Amino acid sequence: MIRPLSWGLAALLCCGAAFAQGSLNERFDASLSSKDQTDWLKLTSAEPNHVGSPHDKKNAEWILAQYKKWGWDAHIETFDVLFPTPIAEAVEMGGFKATLQEKPIPGDTSATAKDPALPAYLAYQGDGDVTAPLVYVNYGTEADYLALQQLGVSVKGKIVIARYGEVWRGVKPLLASKHGAIGCIIYSDPADDGYAQGDTYPKGALRPPQGIQRGSALDMMLTPGDPYTPGYGAVPGAKRLTKETAPSILKIPALPISYADAQVLLKSIAGPLAPRNWRGALPITYRVGGGAGQPAVHLMVKSDWSLKPVRDVIATIKGSEWPDQWVVRGNHFDGWVEGASDPLSGQVALLDEARSIGKLVQSGWKPKRTIVYTSWDGEEPMLLGSTEWVEQHADELKRKAVIYINTDGNSRGFMRASGTQDIGQLATRAAAGVTDPEAHVSVADRARARLQVEALSPAASPEIKEAAKAAAEPGSSLPVGAPGSGSDFSGFVDHLGVTTLDFGFGGEEPGGGVYHSRYDTFEHHTRFDDPGMVYGKVMAATVGHAVLAAADSELPLQHPADLAAAIKADVTKVEKLADARRAAAEQQKTLLAANAFAVASDPTRPHGDPLPLRPVPKFDFTALDEAVATLGKSAGAYEAAVKGARPGPAQIAELQGIMQTIDQTLMAEEGLPGRPWYKNLIYAPGRYIGYGVTTLPGIAESITEEKFDAVPHQVSLVAEALKAYAARLDKATAVLKG
Amino acid sequence: MIRPLSWGLAALLCCGAAFAQGSLNERFDASLSSKDQTDWLKLTSAEPNHVGSPHDKKNAEWILAQYKKWGWDAHIETFDVLFPTPIAEAVEMGGFKATLQEKPIPGDTSATAKDPALPAYLAYQGDGDVTAPLVYVNYGTEADYLALQQLGVSVKGKIVIARYGEVWRGVKPLLASKHGAIGCIIYSDPADDGYAQGDTYPKGALRPPQGIQRGSALDMMLTPGDPYTPGYGAVPGAKRLTKETAPSILKIPALPISYADAQVLLKSIAGPLAPRNWRGALPITYRVGGGAGQPAVHLMVKSDWSLKPVRDVIATIKGSEWPDQWVVRGNHFDGWVEGASDPLSGQVALLDEARSIGKLVQSGWKPKRTIVYTSWDGEEPMLLGSTEWVEQHADELKRKAVIYINTDGNSRGFMRASGTQDIGQLATRAAAGVTDPEAHVSVADRARARLQVEALSPAASPEIKEAAKAAAEPGSSLPVGAPGSGSDFSGFVDHLGVTTLDFGFGGEEPGGGVYHSRYDTFEHHTRFDDPGMVYGKVMAATVGHAVLAAADSELPLQHPADLAAAIKADVTKVEKLADARRAAAEQQKTLLAANAFAVASDPTRPHGDPLPLRPVPKFDFTALDEAVATLGKSAGAYEAAVKGARPGPAQIAELQGIMQTIDQTLMAEEGLPGRPWYKNLIYAPGRYIGYGVTTLPGIAESITEEKFDAVPHQVSLVAEALKAYAARLDKATAVLKG
Repeated sequence: MIRPLSWGLAALLCCGAAFAQGSLNERFDASLSSKDQTDWLKLTSAEPNHVGSPHDKKNAEWILAQYKKWGWDAHIETFDVLFPTPIAEAVEMGGFKATLQEKPIPGDTSATAKDPALPAYLAYQGDGDVTAPLVYVNYGTEADYLALQQLGVSVKGKIVIARYGEVWRGVKPLLASKHGAIGCIIYSDPADDGYAQGDTYPKGALRPPQGIQRGSALDMMLTPGDPYTPGYGAVPGAKRLTKETAPSILKIPALPISYADAQVLLKSIAGPLAPRNWRGALPITYRVGGGAGQPAVHLMVKSDWSLKPVRDVIATIKGSEWPDQWVVRGNHFDGWVEGASDPLSGQVALLDEARSIGKLVQSGWKPKRTIVYTSWDGEEPMLLGSTEWVEQHADELKRKAVIYINTDGNSRGFMRASGTQDIGQLATRAAAGVTDPEAHVSVADRARARLQVEALSPAASPEIKEAAKAAAEPGSSLPVGAPGSGSDFSGFVDHLGVTTLDFGFGGEEPGGGVYHSRYDTFEHHTRFDDPGMVYGKVMAATVGHAVLAAADSELPLQHPADLAAAIKADVTKVEKLADARRAAAEQQKTLLAANAFAVASDPTRPHGDPLPLRPVPKFDFTALDEAVATLGKSAGAYEAAVKGARPGPAQIAELQGIMQTIDQTLMAEEGLPGRPWYKNLIYAPGRYIGYGVTTLPGIAESITEEKFDAVPHQVSLVAEALKAYAARLDKATAVLKG
Repeated sequence: MIRPLSWGLAALLCCGAAFAQGSLNERFDASLSSKDQTDWLKLTSAEPNHVGSPHDKKNAEWILAQYKKWGWDAHIETFDVLFPTPIAEAVEMGGFKATLQEKPIPGDTSATAKDPALPAYLAYQGDGDVTAPLVYVNYGTEADYLALQQLGVSVKGKIVIARYGEVWRGVKPLLASKHGAIGCIIYSDPADDGYAQGDTYPKGALRPPQGIQRGSALDMMLTPGDPYTPGYGAVPGAKRLTKETAPSILKIPALPISYADAQVLLKSIAGPLAPRNWRGALPITYRVGGGAGQPAVHLMVKSDWSLKPVRDVIATIKGSEWPDQWVVRGNHFDGWVEGASDPLSGQVALLDEARSIGKLVQSGWKPKRTIVYTSWDGEEPMLLGSTEWVEQHADELKRKAVIYINTDGNSRGFMRASGTQDIGQLATRAAAGVTDPEAHVSVADRARARLQVEALSPAASPEIKEAAKAAAEPGSSLPVGAPGSGSDFSGFVDHLGVTTLDFGFGGEEPGGGVYHSRYDTFEHHTRFDDPGMVYGKVMAATVGHAVLAAADSELPLQHPADLAAAIKADVTKVEKLADARRAAAEQQKTLLAANAFAVASDPTRPHGDPLPLRPVPKFDFTALDEAVATLGKSAGAYEAAVKGARPGPAQIAELQGIMQTIDQTLMAEEGLPGRPWYKNLIYAPGRYIGYGVTTLPGIAESITEEKFDAVPHQVSLVAEALKAYAARLDKATAVLKG
């Protein structure tokens, strides 16, 4: 037992009534079964499960049958979306040919599956047939291209080779294309994803030399979902763009390869030495390219660009008191190949929850709110199933959805949560009620211990230290990370502004060993990621308790003080960003004028001046600072009023009307600059980051992209949104004070 | 030309008269010759040059002859010191035997030298014959052993294998022994020193798979110099300790190996995965050890422990006005093998200076002060020649030495300087008067541009940003780093408190490719480190101008405001260190009581609690803060008084009496806690760092070693010393004001 770290239950504000129903949680837990999750995982991951595959369809139908069997009102909702699949592909250099399909491993379903796995590819790359020398661009981030400029090397007319990591996969070919490259190859460096992290599969869990990470290369940061129907459902008769007119499809060919093959290509690269932090764990000298005598590489991809069906399975149990208030819960079931760990380990946990809830209902319990369980198809190519469903039902969801709770696979270890940052108490309460089977303390206490220990490390970031400090306060919420993208919550939080919570367990096995490869199999998952599916049950219990609490809680789920604190930190960060960019631009100008970059370079090696930064004006952040102060004040007043409140039925109804869509006040109908699908003013996947979040993205990216004229409007949008959120809180406080 | 970075000459305070003698510098430069330096390098590096070798003796005699030829009063001063050499050695595992001598490379003097090179070894390791499994300890630092503890792995009774880097070589077996290991192997990981940094020798400059770094493993941090005669000269009849009683000799056997051999050993290690920042660039999974089934390794060393002679060559030109004020200049000439780059490239530059000075004297010029050129023997084993000379002549040097100027090898690139931090103006003025042949701006402007560009990088440390900001001020000094150890300045600055300046060029070729190996040859140096010996001439010019200015300057060389600023930063740092350690101890106590480390660990893997930190009391730093303030004030007043001062001869004599030994006020006769040889209260090689400096070491190390009772006395020693320095300044100011 951890004493000093334990949660002070008295101070927990939300959803008290529901969690007080300890017996309900106990009855819920009684039906959960690691054994059944294991059987279901074996069944659903026996064959490749990519969109349009026979087994993906079979799984949809099997999942539908389960929901029905357990008493849910369930149906399949189908969308017809663009999902390109490869017809022909090649990466060649002289006589060398990269191997674009992993060999099956004996003793593994990769060897026994009957339906064929797709070869390794990147969905929504641009097709093409190009031949050019390679340039190694490290992770292929914006910072890497800036460094490349100072190394005096251009990617124009070249094929870039980037390693996986740092930013989302799709950013790499996108930036390569933006900088003039004609093709892009991505590989998994063993420093990040391979032997450096442990023994490789099948001896250990890690990515073997021949393993390849497939994935999407759509411009997710512009719009996720079907690229032909941006912003609306891909239903029959919907107006569709074409490959030529859809802006989110990549314009250049791109392929992923293994590190065994990458080693051959990287070794052929001449030119400047790669900077120290660009070097991976292959036993070679990493060079950037542009050197004399470097051989050309041939890259070719040809795809089938036809539409394919995605089949979401939607299951409902109607609420007894507030049927038009929905608690939505989802996890996808399509995989890049068999997808045992990603996503089916999460799907079977979700199904375990659904079965338990079904049993509770059969035994006479009724949720006060409507519970909607969603098993998404087509997440891997680009959140297709969830996004199309969200777009198709946008109006209804904006009115009815109280919360969306997401997972996406599972493994043993520590709980982490992200989402709208007013929802930490719900996550914390749920985690406080489940015992971790390895550490024999609550899941919440273990997560907190982890955070405290991490914060003690000399290498800990100021953010982790701050989070650990905040989470050490009695009754405080575990930190909820700001949501980026890369899973099915995106449509809910980024497009609609629905209160969102994304859960997951992990951190004990080095992750990613078979991620998006043919070796993400039942055998791998149950040997390494979650032996005995013990954490499958832990996740079902944790998430299930959150669902039950959300379904029955009379008081609002939000804990606005947490959000106010998070946004305050975000505002400080963006103001510091402006100052730092201004100082950097001024210093750079001085140094450029002084020819200092050339003087500080080795003249015997290629080098270049950095691209000149635009001078950064002084921005007026007064409105933003005032709005943050107002929000903090209103949140404090609300927390004080709700503490110990015992509102009557009419007050509760009024409160629910005010609070359950409060996160939608943080949306702007016009969306973010240049990407109108993203309407959330607080959170978005970073424009050139991907899965990682950029907070206050309209302001931050106007600064980093040097669109300084846009800053005042973005500041005003955010300030107004924060004031609107605060005004809702003031109304709720007035109701509570009666 | 760099305008905004140029030095404002008007504001330069020291040694104005000497630098105004532009024509003297020009005449000095006229005799310098890259061609002659090349010829001398070829001659002196043709055979192995370790202490006691025939060629080392031959070089001493040849150097002596040159000095004499150029008109210097020169002699050889011999000391008889302990210098162990290997008789037998082995690193074996099963049938595998490590190769402890590099094969010669055709076309290289490693292949044509007739006298034998010593096999790879570590001087002053402890001899022994041990067999045990390996534990990989990363760089083998204190932090690494703390991490090891949390990984649940002990080195007790084991042989550790550490990679070169982070801390000085000798710290690695010392800490291994302290933690109970029975042997130590050190290797050069290619991530730090090998193929990761470029093509390997002979194709490129970098360390080849079979290259081995030799070196000293004496406990330099306790006492450098001959371990049998600590604190006094190793002259005939001196009282000598024995191998058993000399505390600085290592107690366990230790050997260095190549990375080709290390790969075989490291691959055999089982047990926990090495933390991410412990992993090098070998294509293996780095593991820590302690796992089942790990084979034992046999390590054996047997040495000849006889005394050997070191022959310092001392050359003097008597001063015309102040013969009892000495400007001492040195570079060593012994090498681990041939030592072309380290140290002979610096030795031939020094000789070029000596020849030019000789010519100036022959043409009628006379230095006002006495110039003493010193060519040191026995630096590599442990600063033997310089330390014994300093110890032997301590009293005279404390009275007469105005400054010691050191170099230790050379290569092309950027100038850097370290030393007593009141000497930056001298270095800066010297560097401002020499044109960099690659960048065509002054050496000073190039160093400053480099610093400014480095400071612009997002990865720049606060220290670099601060230094860049300070160096951007018109008339400011280039930063002079605090002196650590690892070269012949140590005796002067650490033991006597003589004003010290250590110069060097480099940073354009990845350094260390052949450091302390058989491949540090004439061919390697002239192909990669300094083609055409262009920078040999640049260094001779820069250092030579500093020598001439120091010899002739009427006004004191010190610029105390620079020192005051540096010490102020050091005091802030040590106070923050105390606060950080206190907070860490408190947090750790809470977490230990809560069992948080176990809860935050993966129970399926070995893990352990960290060693408990002692609670850190609140220290009273008032006296220190006051002394720093006093020093700042006195330094400011002195700078104001000296600016534009035109003192008469009597005043000058008085000023010289006050100022030229002012850095000795920062010494304590009792020395640092546990290491009385080190008497400088401001600078010392870190107790478990080595070459790297720890500033205010008595205070800082009493804190980090948890000897909290010792802090008040150390604080008081430093405060008194700073006040003594300030009092000298006040006296000087009074003299200047007349």
